[in-house]
Amino acid sequence: MDDDRALFTDLYELTMGAVYFAEDLDTPASFELFVRGMPRGRNFMVAAGLEQVLDYLEDLQLEPHHIEYLHSLKMFDPAFVDHLAGLRFTGDVWAMPEGTIFFPDEPVIRITAPRIQAQLVETFLLTTINFQSMIASKAARILIATDGRPFVDFSPRRDHGLDAANSAARASYIAGAAGTSNVVAGMRYGMPVSGTMAHSFVMSYEDELDAFCAYLRVFPDHPTLLIDTYDIQQGALNAIEAHRRMSEHGARVGSVRIDSGSVGDEARSVRKLLDQAGLEEVKIFVSGDLDEYIIDELLRSGAPADAFGVGTRLGVSADAPYLPGVYKLVDDRLGPRLKTSVGKETLPGAKQVWRRIQDGTFAGDVIGLQSESFDGGTPLLRQVMSAGQRLEPALPLGEIKEYCTAQVEQLPPAFRSLDQTEPYPVELSPAMAGLREDLRAHYSDRAG
Amino acid sequence: MDDDRALFTDLYELTMGAVYFAEDLDTPASFELFVRGMPRGRNFMVAAGLEQVLDYLEDLQLEPHHIEYLHSLKMFDPAFVDHLAGLRFTGDVWAMPEGTIFFPDEPVIRITAPRIQAQLVETFLLTTINFQSMIASKAARILIATDGRPFVDFSPRRDHGLDAANSAARASYIAGAAGTSNVVAGMRYGMPVSGTMAHSFVMSYEDELDAFCAYLRVFPDHPTLLIDTYDIQQGALNAIEAHRRMSEHGARVGSVRIDSGSVGDEARSVRKLLDQAGLEEVKIFVSGDLDEYIIDELLRSGAPADAFGVGTRLGVSADAPYLPGVYKLVDDRLGPRLKTSVGKETLPGAKQVWRRIQDGTFAGDVIGLQSESFDGGTPLLRQVMSAGQRLEPALPLGEIKEYCTAQVEQLPPAFRSLDQTEPYPVELSPAMAGLREDLRAHYSDRAG
Repeated sequence: MDDDRALFTDLYELTMGAVYFAEDLDTPASFELFVRGMPRGRNFMVAAGLEQVLDYLEDLQLEPHHIEYLHSLKMFDPAFVDHLAGLRFTGDVWAMPEGTIFFPDEPVIRITAPRIQAQLVETFLLTTINFQSMIASKAARILIATDGRPFVDFSPRRDHGLDAANSAARASYIAGAAGTSNVVAGMRYGMPVSGTMAHSFVMSYEDELDAFCAYLRVFPDHPTLLIDTYDIQQGALNAIEAHRRMSEHGARVGSVRIDSGSVGDEARSVRKLLDQAGLEEVKIFVSGDLDEYIIDELLRSGAPADAFGVGTRLGVSADAPYLPGVYKLVDDRLGPRLKTSVGKETLPGAKQVWRRIQDGTFAGDVIGLQSESFDGGTPLLRQVMSAGQRLEPALPLGEIKEYCTAQVEQLPPAFRSLDQTEPYPVELSPAMAGLREDLRAHYSDRAG
Repeated sequence: MDDDRALFTDLYELTMGAVYFAEDLDTPASFELFVRGMPRGRNFMVAAGLEQVLDYLEDLQLEPHHIEYLHSLKMFDPAFVDHLAGLRFTGDVWAMPEGTIFFPDEPVIRITAPRIQAQLVETFLLTTINFQSMIASKAARILIATDGRPFVDFSPRRDHGLDAANSAARASYIAGAAGTSNVVAGMRYGMPVSGTMAHSFVMSYEDELDAFCAYLRVFPDHPTLLIDTYDIQQGALNAIEAHRRMSEHGARVGSVRIDSGSVGDEARSVRKLLDQAGLEEVKIFVSGDLDEYIIDELLRSGAPADAFGVGTRLGVSADAPYLPGVYKLVDDRLGPRLKTSVGKETLPGAKQVWRRIQDGTFAGDVIGLQSESFDGGTPLLRQVMSAGQRLEPALPLGEIKEYCTAQVEQLPPAFRSLDQTEPYPVELSPAMAGLREDLRAHYSDRAG
């Protein structure tokens, strides 16, 4: 955890706060976080990061060195900075549970709080929800491509820093990964960790066979041997020979890993060698620049790959490396609010999303006003915090993962394709559409 | 700073370590970090992140809760975990200074240390250098596009977590940004912070003009007013009127900001309105989904934009969202090492990079062995740590920024284009090429 997270905010949250403070405008306001359009190549998104948001909101308190820094900027009224020193989050939060599938324009979180608080937390909320939801959305696609075969997050070295790596491990686990190579994530989130050896390990011995035997001596219980440091076929033969030599000491090879070359062809030849040696139970683990598209192609070509390590392209969501989530004012003392910027218009008012389910499949969503009631759909946003207090303890990660898996299974089949399909049907309730029209008319009158 | 950074590692660093520990192989080894190919669309890369690496290496020490977690995995010999508890970094480090321009295959950092240490630090080094160098490389391009006009990092909300946002602010400052919206980065790195208002601020008032006047009352000294919440031209007129009303109280508008719409056309109309009102000194600040390509196009079309806020596409380097940096064994007790995996062959031995400079311009690099001497070129790698101790204190960020600016100015003009050009000339010294041939022959003999 970053020890400065309470101050993690864009400067304008503070300058706006200073004006609200001076003008006595620190009255309750509601802001909603939503994504403004489907990222390239995606058919759905998976919400993640709420747990980190609630933890942050519960703990929100600036430290003395933060206050000292703000004074040192000589930009703010000292009385405002003192107000910030005493600030805690006292608002209400409604949110979709982590692992929920969502679509553009649907609010994922709503914050209702005195305006200075509601504004201060914007940056942390966006950074956290945008990133984790992006990764969960990518991981769900990878699980679709592996068709149930396990894959592991191998991304830390290419992720955008430590926080990214830890959150990527968590979010990819929620939506499909079997585990991670990241030890901190394993410790923090109680996730399975995995990994055995790098090429440098094999190169540390004169001979690849010696390296494999040494590894099996220390880790006799089904480890994965990396067989592509020099020549893959020779590597497979060395793995087989290491297995033979070390099996009398009770050691068993679990898998061989291929990390380079023409993986499909190599896997076929290696499978043949393993089978000929009677090692049908030894699995083939594939890694190296994988993503859902490459895995899908590999498996369609019949490559005998049993499990995957997915790194870079999962951890940065390489084909769609950001989620365009925004956090917008929807309601305050002046009533429901509408922003009319070209291409960036918002939906006014505190909202709810109802999802219709037919025959166990998602059939369409309705975005309406929180104050509406709606039959025939399940509301997706639930109150999770009241007056700054969580209403329920954190869910175990395993439960979130189960819920997420069930969500993906309820998608209509076209949305579980890797190809982009028609947009999922999301409509506005009549009351929502009417409110928007009224406000549009109001602003265009005033502009005229 | 993440309080678990000492444990931030891939599991395989620890499993390999356990074998080296058991087999008494914790002997000195050298690993080098380099990037394996030019990222898409780039002509050069800018090294960044060394300061964070040295800080980490100096402080490296697992905490009691890390040790407890490692024991709890029941995967490791307790004697090895106890060894880790006492582990400190005692190695030597050679590196290119931050802000140095570098090219594929050139080592950016070399670690020489007992193998368990050298391996343990791999993940932190890669994550840190890959990310910061990627951002610095992107920021340098944006500065080329703005042609000297200032730009500010607005990326936190779309960055991949807190660590990413803080490091992105730092790295983009090194290579060109004038400041950041990120308050934590401002505090940590002593960087300028900037930002004034969001659309929600304007929407918090019945009237845009009231919002602008309120802001000028609290921040009278040249603030930026955001004029596109409703209608941009009307917003400009409101900014002018707010300036007029508040100027009798000593307030002055500094800039107006346009964040949506057809920015080029809008900026031209707004400039006209400002000039007609005698506000020639008020600047136009442009933001909203910018990158070097869009800024270049805007300025080529003659749009009167004076400064830029660059967010998402800078903070995730959207067109090339990862740097494929790797960390490879190059030398150990067995001598210079070569990995021959298809497409992933390494250069053997501890290396140096010499850069030839002609008429103040970079004329080509030579990758040779550290042990070679080479006339007519400047060596780029310097020793920065000896036996775990830094040889020099951290450089002020401003000095790194100056050095980096000078580096970019020494690039041949073709490499300062936004379009990808021919690769920069990087050759191997005869001794390096010869060593590689010898080792290739050695491995192919053994495979045959």
